[in-house]
Amino acid sequence: MPTLYLHKETCLSNIQNMYNKARDHGLSFRPHCKTHQSAEISSWFRDYPVEGITVSSFRMARYFASAGWKDILIAFPFHPGELDELKNLADSCKLSILLDTPAALPFLNQLSHPVDFYLDIDTGYGRTGIRSGNADLIQQILKKSDTNPRLTFKGFYCHAGHSYKASDRKEQDSIHLKALHDLGTLKEQFAEYGPRVLFGDTPNCSIQENFSGIDEITPGNFVFYDLVQHSLGACSPEDIAVALECPVAGKYHHRMQILVHGGGVHFSKEFLVKDGHSIYGRMVDSSAGSWLPGKADYWLNGLSQEHGILDADEDLFHRLNIGDKLLFLPVHSCLTANLAREYRTLDGQRIENIHSS
Amino acid sequence: MPTLYLHKETCLSNIQNMYNKARDHGLSFRPHCKTHQSAEISSWFRDYPVEGITVSSFRMARYFASAGWKDILIAFPFHPGELDELKNLADSCKLSILLDTPAALPFLNQLSHPVDFYLDIDTGYGRTGIRSGNADLIQQILKKSDTNPRLTFKGFYCHAGHSYKASDRKEQDSIHLKALHDLGTLKEQFAEYGPRVLFGDTPNCSIQENFSGIDEITPGNFVFYDLVQHSLGACSPEDIAVALECPVAGKYHHRMQILVHGGGVHFSKEFLVKDGHSIYGRMVDSSAGSWLPGKADYWLNGLSQEHGILDADEDLFHRLNIGDKLLFLPVHSCLTANLAREYRTLDGQRIENIHSS
Repeated sequence: MPTLYLHKETCLSNIQNMYNKARDHGLSFRPHCKTHQSAEISSWFRDYPVEGITVSSFRMARYFASAGWKDILIAFPFHPGELDELKNLADSCKLSILLDTPAALPFLNQLSHPVDFYLDIDTGYGRTGIRSGNADLIQQILKKSDTNPRLTFKGFYCHAGHSYKASDRKEQDSIHLKALHDLGTLKEQFAEYGPRVLFGDTPNCSIQENFSGIDEITPGNFVFYDLVQHSLGACSPEDIAVALECPVAGKYHHRMQILVHGGGVHFSKEFLVKDGHSIYGRMVDSSAGSWLPGKADYWLNGLSQEHGILDADEDLFHRLNIGDKLLFLPVHSCLTANLAREYRTLDGQRIENIHSS
Repeated sequence: MPTLYLHKETCLSNIQNMYNKARDHGLSFRPHCKTHQSAEISSWFRDYPVEGITVSSFRMARYFASAGWKDILIAFPFHPGELDELKNLADSCKLSILLDTPAALPFLNQLSHPVDFYLDIDTGYGRTGIRSGNADLIQQILKKSDTNPRLTFKGFYCHAGHSYKASDRKEQDSIHLKALHDLGTLKEQFAEYGPRVLFGDTPNCSIQENFSGIDEITPGNFVFYDLVQHSLGACSPEDIAVALECPVAGKYHHRMQILVHGGGVHFSKEFLVKDGHSIYGRMVDSSAGSWLPGKADYWLNGLSQEHGILDADEDLFHRLNIGDKLLFLPVHSCLTANLAREYRTLDGQRIENIHSS
């Protein structure tokens, strides 16, 4: 069956590079763990002065707390269905949550342990958060939360995820600069609270060099990168640290296609559009203890539950045999990794994740 | 966190209806278990004369074999990486595999127990299989396989999955009739082998009434159905037997949107296009012990890893509060179910699946 391979050296180098970037810009580094979801991979950050991590669910928070992390930000707006989990986990661990509405506050009166919170700020992505110009709403939440002795305002959090939709570098820069501007304005407006500013999706943290006003970055995908990040200029193909190994199961000469065992339950259905066609993965050549982008580009152009369809040419078609194992870079490594129950390093070591039973 | 609810009565009724349809047409019924991937749900078929099941991977075959199934078809072209698993499992269970190339045959000389095979036939889908007109290739495989005493040819298998791409009923009918015609021709051409013909994706098995020449149907999705099946006319919304419960985590009046906890790691990223927009789920109203399509249509119009964005109107917006739990019908129930670690029935019973640990 398909196996998700991890290029450990590339992953370690991605971690080192992002740590260096944070350090060189005087930023704290609170890596997001939603991409790898692995206690062992999170432990590779401990070689650096990394104290806190970011996750996107209470399930992940529990998992990483039991792996020894003591300072965890749950970067999803808190809602009351999570109150019991929050109370339980805050007993053993320093937890931070996101808020973007005063409606969540009454539930937090039931806390029995201290919890920090960040206000989630929307600088234009339009997924979650208080619009950055809405200082009244921020003031309202801060005033109301001030009456809760267990709840401490720490600062502002922003995921400028519209960086993923930018069509060119100019638009990327414009999204980034607007976020810096808006967050800087809030930092000044609410200076009396000494707010920290947390920022940083992988494209912005990889591409940009101006982090003026930011205190801490929270990227996640950079540990592995993927074809989406490459398409955004955030990484080179050589930086992509995971590849799904799929056996060849069929050859169809009349349509010059190869069937591989590797489908939507392995890659996810995330796609990129290339020359008007959806693509789900890019083939790379295995090489001694590593992999390399091939001389020609070969793409998975179709996926169903267990099936992947690879477009070939005469050369590739005749080189491949039933049973050969091919490696594919994923379109979106977070979703591909979420579908795997473990990673394998190129020297055969098994690395567990949250789904390993 | 999001919970996948199973409407057990609807699921039982879907099973009953498909069984009745098979019986009324004189067909054997070998349900595909890739949608539910649950030993308990598979046991609901035992009330009928259902002896054999279909799965799409060796992992599923092992799981259902250990749940007591003794006759399992693995409906994915066999490749040599699976030889050891095949040898192990064929020891305890009657296994059938699919073949579509003579290149797989030499590996099967190592079998130590009998295994049946079906030839995978492509009537136009273009995913796997021998093109239905290619009798020479069929002859070649049969001749070669005949020298292997452990390997027995049982017949032809066809998944006419292009039924999912048909734009109207006329095209659906045409795909179906071509499949019947091509399979009927092969049955005659290879009559000396007394081949059985296995056929039947969920749209064809749900919509069509002509199964001339078919011996056995193998649909899977019909246990749950989903929005894709509804869009194809294969079911009504009331037939959809799973819904993902997602808590409300944010409200954004300026864009009339609701944030729910329910993202790509819960629904999958499968989408339908509605009025030019991608949609990822349809809201239904909870009702005493059941759910009902709402009076108005509300759709999830965006998904990221953990986040779902629901388009609201003033009425819905003001009715909903942070923490409320909403139910959504999935676009593709196979992929949504694959992401769940269990089902919950509406009376709170837990139903395990292959991922339950």
